[in-house]
Amino acid sequence: MTQQNFSLDNEELHQLLESDDASLKAYFSSVPYPADITEFLDHADLQQWPRLLRLIEDPEKRAEVFSGIDEMKWQDLLARLQPEEITALVLQMESDDATDIVAKLPISVRYDILRRLPVEERRHVQQLLGYPEDSAGGIMQVELAQVYEDATVSDAVSRVRELVEDDVEVLAVWVVNKEDRLVGYVALVDLLLHKATTPIRSLLETDVVTVNPLVDQEEVAHIFKKYDLITLPVVDETNRLLGRIVIDDIVDVLAQEAEEDALRMAGTSEAELMHPTAVFSTARIRLPWLAVALGCSLVSASLLKIFAPLLESATILYAFLPVIMAMGGNVGTQSSTILIRGFATEKADLSDMWQILFKEIRVGFLMGLVYGTCAGVVAAFILSKHNVYLGLVVFISMIIAMMTAGAMGVLAPSLLKKLKIDPAISAGPFVTTMNDITGILIYMSVAGFFLKNLE
Amino acid sequence: MTQQNFSLDNEELHQLLESDDASLKAYFSSVPYPADITEFLDHADLQQWPRLLRLIEDPEKRAEVFSGIDEMKWQDLLARLQPEEITALVLQMESDDATDIVAKLPISVRYDILRRLPVEERRHVQQLLGYPEDSAGGIMQVELAQVYEDATVSDAVSRVRELVEDDVEVLAVWVVNKEDRLVGYVALVDLLLHKATTPIRSLLETDVVTVNPLVDQEEVAHIFKKYDLITLPVVDETNRLLGRIVIDDIVDVLAQEAEEDALRMAGTSEAELMHPTAVFSTARIRLPWLAVALGCSLVSASLLKIFAPLLESATILYAFLPVIMAMGGNVGTQSSTILIRGFATEKADLSDMWQILFKEIRVGFLMGLVYGTCAGVVAAFILSKHNVYLGLVVFISMIIAMMTAGAMGVLAPSLLKKLKIDPAISAGPFVTTMNDITGILIYMSVAGFFLKNLE
Repeated sequence: MTQQNFSLDNEELHQLLESDDASLKAYFSSVPYPADITEFLDHADLQQWPRLLRLIEDPEKRAEVFSGIDEMKWQDLLARLQPEEITALVLQMESDDATDIVAKLPISVRYDILRRLPVEERRHVQQLLGYPEDSAGGIMQVELAQVYEDATVSDAVSRVRELVEDDVEVLAVWVVNKEDRLVGYVALVDLLLHKATTPIRSLLETDVVTVNPLVDQEEVAHIFKKYDLITLPVVDETNRLLGRIVIDDIVDVLAQEAEEDALRMAGTSEAELMHPTAVFSTARIRLPWLAVALGCSLVSASLLKIFAPLLESATILYAFLPVIMAMGGNVGTQSSTILIRGFATEKADLSDMWQILFKEIRVGFLMGLVYGTCAGVVAAFILSKHNVYLGLVVFISMIIAMMTAGAMGVLAPSLLKKLKIDPAISAGPFVTTMNDITGILIYMSVAGFFLKNLE
Repeated sequence: MTQQNFSLDNEELHQLLESDDASLKAYFSSVPYPADITEFLDHADLQQWPRLLRLIEDPEKRAEVFSGIDEMKWQDLLARLQPEEITALVLQMESDDATDIVAKLPISVRYDILRRLPVEERRHVQQLLGYPEDSAGGIMQVELAQVYEDATVSDAVSRVRELVEDDVEVLAVWVVNKEDRLVGYVALVDLLLHKATTPIRSLLETDVVTVNPLVDQEEVAHIFKKYDLITLPVVDETNRLLGRIVIDDIVDVLAQEAEEDALRMAGTSEAELMHPTAVFSTARIRLPWLAVALGCSLVSASLLKIFAPLLESATILYAFLPVIMAMGGNVGTQSSTILIRGFATEKADLSDMWQILFKEIRVGFLMGLVYGTCAGVVAAFILSKHNVYLGLVVFISMIIAMMTAGAMGVLAPSLLKKLKIDPAISAGPFVTTMNDITGILIYMSVAGFFLKNLE
């Protein structure tokens, strides 16, 4: 029987969570997809998880359920499991997930677990532990189908059979020469369509994109996307095959990177999602960003104090300060976001900076004309009694502030990129509060120029 | 020979772009991956593209290069191609890409092209044109390997062979019953590992996740991610197999949705990326968002005018207005972003709203305590001459403003979600400028309360 979805609705979930061990056990063994059990766990308290995991009788299914759990929760969860249970999970997993688990253990437990693993698994995990978590090496698996170039289709099929019996997903057979250098691959479908005695050499696809283990996972995702790949071999500098990356891990990478970028642009981080109800840790994550914002806004305050005599001589000026500041902030956010996303998706790079800068300044001018006119009219005829000079000050300030904000929205992320800092952080409090400062300076200067007419 | 990457560096690109047709032709036929030719086109002017495309001699490669081009550029490009050329492209493409091309043509050309297609291709395209572009039906292909449940491995292999000869990528064989209802699938690897005479029924995997053609592509991506799929069958309500979705299209969907969300949060849209140098169209896209911001900030201006007598009696109050407003805006952006991302990734839903609201208010209180103290001290002892009451006003306002901003950051996206509007739009100008208004009201009320002490 096929179905759209194996998920339970909320009511069923709650009923199930309160039922006894026997019914939970029966439910877990009846669910075909481990992902649905993972989703079920997400609705229970973390304290319940070890008990619930133990109720999944099939150890392979239990390991798959564990693999599906958000990695940010692994550490908490592993601390509640016995070493034997952790070892059993590790043994059921492919090398990349096994390594991720081991990497999350405290050093003392880590050695205990490694000691319990069979020699080959231990060697795999130790090898993978050597790569940064967010590199190609950190997301590759070492289990793969590899044959020599003088093999036949039948040899390749035997190798595939061995792996499938070990529950390894096979997507292609990699072909190496006598020196163990990668020379190409054969697609599964080609093995299927050719006779057992066909030499592998005759089916060999030699144009193969490869990646070095130290390449960042975001770049790896870009390669998958560009070449429409399902799997990608990882090789060292001498073209020796080290492992392979599979598309489902790339789907996770894409989701994770999009998340990181979005949150960083708002001056927070993914760590916050880890403790959805923890007030103190949330505040701690957000505080540093706000400190920058506070610093900048205290500069604004000092500027206003310095300009106090000017403002006091025409207090109506105060009313339009938030308008200039808010509009500049918004234009700056728009232009910096466009550029940050351009950098992230490689649609823009630093060589385009001057062209984009020039464009944003012109866009700022255009928008300043439109909104400066609106705000100027309101200033001159609605909020004041035909004070045309106030309208003029607002109009001119708005144009200059919007051009400056557009420019700053290009310069801030470009500067960060040049300094090899993630440009995304500039979109948040930084550009907005910087624009507050320049907005005040612009508005005060223009007002100062027309002061005689305003009083 | 294998290599990391077939991309050219900038200098090589420019040299090549200026070389004659013969060398370009030679280059295009030497590049193994069409994606690298697409990347090369991205560096040339759009006007050059038709000429460059014509220099790719292999029509299949030309179609693959075209498929790789950003869909936002298709319309411009198609307008520069002859109907025969468009037909040739469509004929080489799988049904989903072919439909996307046809959908981008003006109605008059569309019928001309459809008329030129063979009956079967035309039927496929016409069928797919019926689904919304961003639905499961809009991204599925109708070409797939399907056999009846009484078939043998050898029958399935023959069907796979037919498709491979037509350049269709086969990832699984779908199995239907006599009434054409989907009953399961057989993995390619299982065909490879079993004898030709094995009945398909004995290899059948019946637990298969399916999707309805009208499901949104973002939900489809979520299903791929959850179940670690490579391909997903699309069925109608009676479980009749309509087509299949392949992971590489999902990778594009994920990238596209992340992009849309990020840009929408800044009050702009992907359409802007289409014309990187077009000042007028960029301004047109951003103007409506800024109009909302302008409206809100003019409300701020009116409020300040109303409170003018209060402010004039203690002008130092003005200096801290930007501080209260900026900090509220930042807290609001942080809390709304967390919730918007939570909604987007289905980690949060409306039933969690009260819990999150309560949390954000407490976080706001905590951060208000910290930053209110800092700003209050600066107000009382640095920017004024020991005006302790000014410090107190700033301190209290900051706490209330941050709690309100945190709450608004939860309420605004939740309200939009309830109204079935994309919550992402609330993160931009909306929350920030709303916070400006409440910030002014809070600050003025607190200041009014202490007015006697401030004067």
